Amino acid sequence: MDIARIEAAGERLKGQARRTPLLGAPALDEIAGRRLLIKPECLQRTGSFKFRGGWAALSALPEGARRRGVIAFSSGNHAQGVALAAREHGAPAVIIMPSDAPRLKIENTRALGAEVVLYERGGAESRESIGARLSAERGLTLIKPYDDPEVIAGQGTCGLEIAQQAAELGITEAEVLVCCGGGGLTAGIALALEARAPGMRVRPAEPEGFDDTARSLALGERQSNAREAGGLCDAILTPTPGALTFPITSRLCGPGVVVTDEEALKAMALAFRHLKVVAEPGGAVALAGALFHGDELEGETAIATISGGNVEAAVFAQALATLE
Amino acid sequence: MDIARIEAAGERLKGQARRTPLLGAPALDEIAGRRLLIKPECLQRTGSFKFRGGWAALSALPEGARRRGVIAFSSGNHAQGVALAAREHGAPAVIIMPSDAPRLKIENTRALGAEVVLYERGGAESRESIGARLSAERGLTLIKPYDDPEVIAGQGTCGLEIAQQAAELGITEAEVLVCCGGGGLTAGIALALEARAPGMRVRPAEPEGFDDTARSLALGERQSNAREAGGLCDAILTPTPGALTFPITSRLCGPGVVVTDEEALKAMALAFRHLKVVAEPGGAVALAGALFHGDELEGETAIATISGGNVEAAVFAQALATLE
Repeated sequence: MDIARIEAAGERLKGQARRTPLLGAPALDEIAGRRLLIKPECLQRTGSFKFRGGWAALSALPEGARRRGVIAFSSGNHAQGVALAAREHGAPAVIIMPSDAPRLKIENTRALGAEVVLYERGGAESRESIGARLSAERGLTLIKPYDDPEVIAGQGTCGLEIAQQAAELGITEAEVLVCCGGGGLTAGIALALEARAPGMRVRPAEPEGFDDTARSLALGERQSNAREAGGLCDAILTPTPGALTFPITSRLCGPGVVVTDEEALKAMALAFRHLKVVAEPGGAVALAGALFHGDELEGETAIATISGGNVEAAVFAQALATLE
Repeated sequence: MDIARIEAAGERLKGQARRTPLLGAPALDEIAGRRLLIKPECLQRTGSFKFRGGWAALSALPEGARRRGVIAFSSGNHAQGVALAAREHGAPAVIIMPSDAPRLKIENTRALGAEVVLYERGGAESRESIGARLSAERGLTLIKPYDDPEVIAGQGTCGLEIAQQAAELGITEAEVLVCCGGGGLTAGIALALEARAPGMRVRPAEPEGFDDTARSLALGERQSNAREAGGLCDAILTPTPGALTFPITSRLCGPGVVVTDEEALKAMALAFRHLKVVAEPGGAVALAGALFHGDELEGETAIATISGGNVEAAVFAQALATLE
């Protein structure tokens, strides 16, 4: 994995992925105690950064493989990203989703033309084994959610944009908080910033109880979470850092930041009020880290990703209820 | 008023106003029955397009006038736009707001350093006369919300962006729905598109009961609304089209589109679900027009502005309740 691969993915994504803006608001600077910029990937196509990796992976496949189709397993955002990328490439897509995934994400994935296969979290057959079996049966190519070099490269294009957009504001040093599940976005952004904004440091952000990356970084080897499900942050509940992503994050990323579900909800509410964007709980953990864990950060500027906004109305209403 | 003035405002706004993206979602295309692109000015600084006009006006003032300060009257969005533009120019700002303006907008305006003066809608002294009196007393320059050439030019920069961003997608013909109060944004966008995208036509969108522009366009002369307040769309409740804006809109803009408050709420909910942006009721009327009044539109493509997102949580919850 190197910057050339990310740049190449960026070329293939031109005119496909949106260049999301870099937002900010005086009121958020005040809460954060420093200048705070936000990269709202909830505004990306399909409502999360996952479209970048999906498109990068689909567009890198040989023509024959693309025609046979792709398969992906995902709690929802990777599903939608791959489904749309596949549809626009004219490739069939099968998506394996946990049966407890938000209904909205399942519906959206189906609406994008994908065949959805549901599985039980912690059930008899793991999603990985279901994926491998279906791939073999139908000749589908498995697009992993994070442990795939093209997917990491696609997510890294978000880092290229951060480096360039921050430089336009005169900012070359910052702590960059990234919502972290398996680490695809985190590793991709870290690689992009290493090459294009070496004064920035990536800080993975995770929800309490699912802080496998923070603990893995602290101990120097991959740790697992006690639980596989539960909590509000469904988008970033992964059992353990990726085999490809962890060597990157452990080399480049600073200590993890861990936030509570309540802090994620408050961050969603503040994003509603001051940024006018919709964040989902898992997509708000980096913003929550910047707003409520400022004492764990260094320097005058923080940049926080909002990784996605695919949230049910009832959960969003819960977030709004934290205001005042 | 000509395109040169809008281009000049665009130069002064560089690095100050955000270039908001052009969004879209397959699910919204389907509801609209055509390709639908959205220009989310809720993502603009201060949460509405009004920052463009505020900055354009402030930056056009002579140095001495700027030092004495500015005054504006506004239900909230113009207030915030002028307040932030004034603060960043080091100019004092007095903002005259109706006492029934959303509390959030009053608070935000104060938080931006402005002095807020409240008045009663339909009370003894009109906001215009209060503004004129205070201007005279303190040597303040009145920044009108729409009937000011620099303000219209500033709002017109949104039209320059629409023309360019649509052209990048290969789109040169479209109906462009614009949320319309006094007509500053509508007139500004119409002038910009006349010069830069003559295949596009602006369609002003208004809430039922406050459709003064639609009726004025139909009759060829300025009409007034029966009521001055009420309804959900506080951002765009103006008594009559502007003296400067109406000659522009009547020359360039097609028939108005009128939507119900219920349709505005539904559009807010669909913007939440599919675009991940927060629209306020008045900011959602153009999107509501594109989604629910497609039979009044022509052509294969519509572009709708979301003019602002400064909405109280309780009203937003009301919008979310329309889902399903």
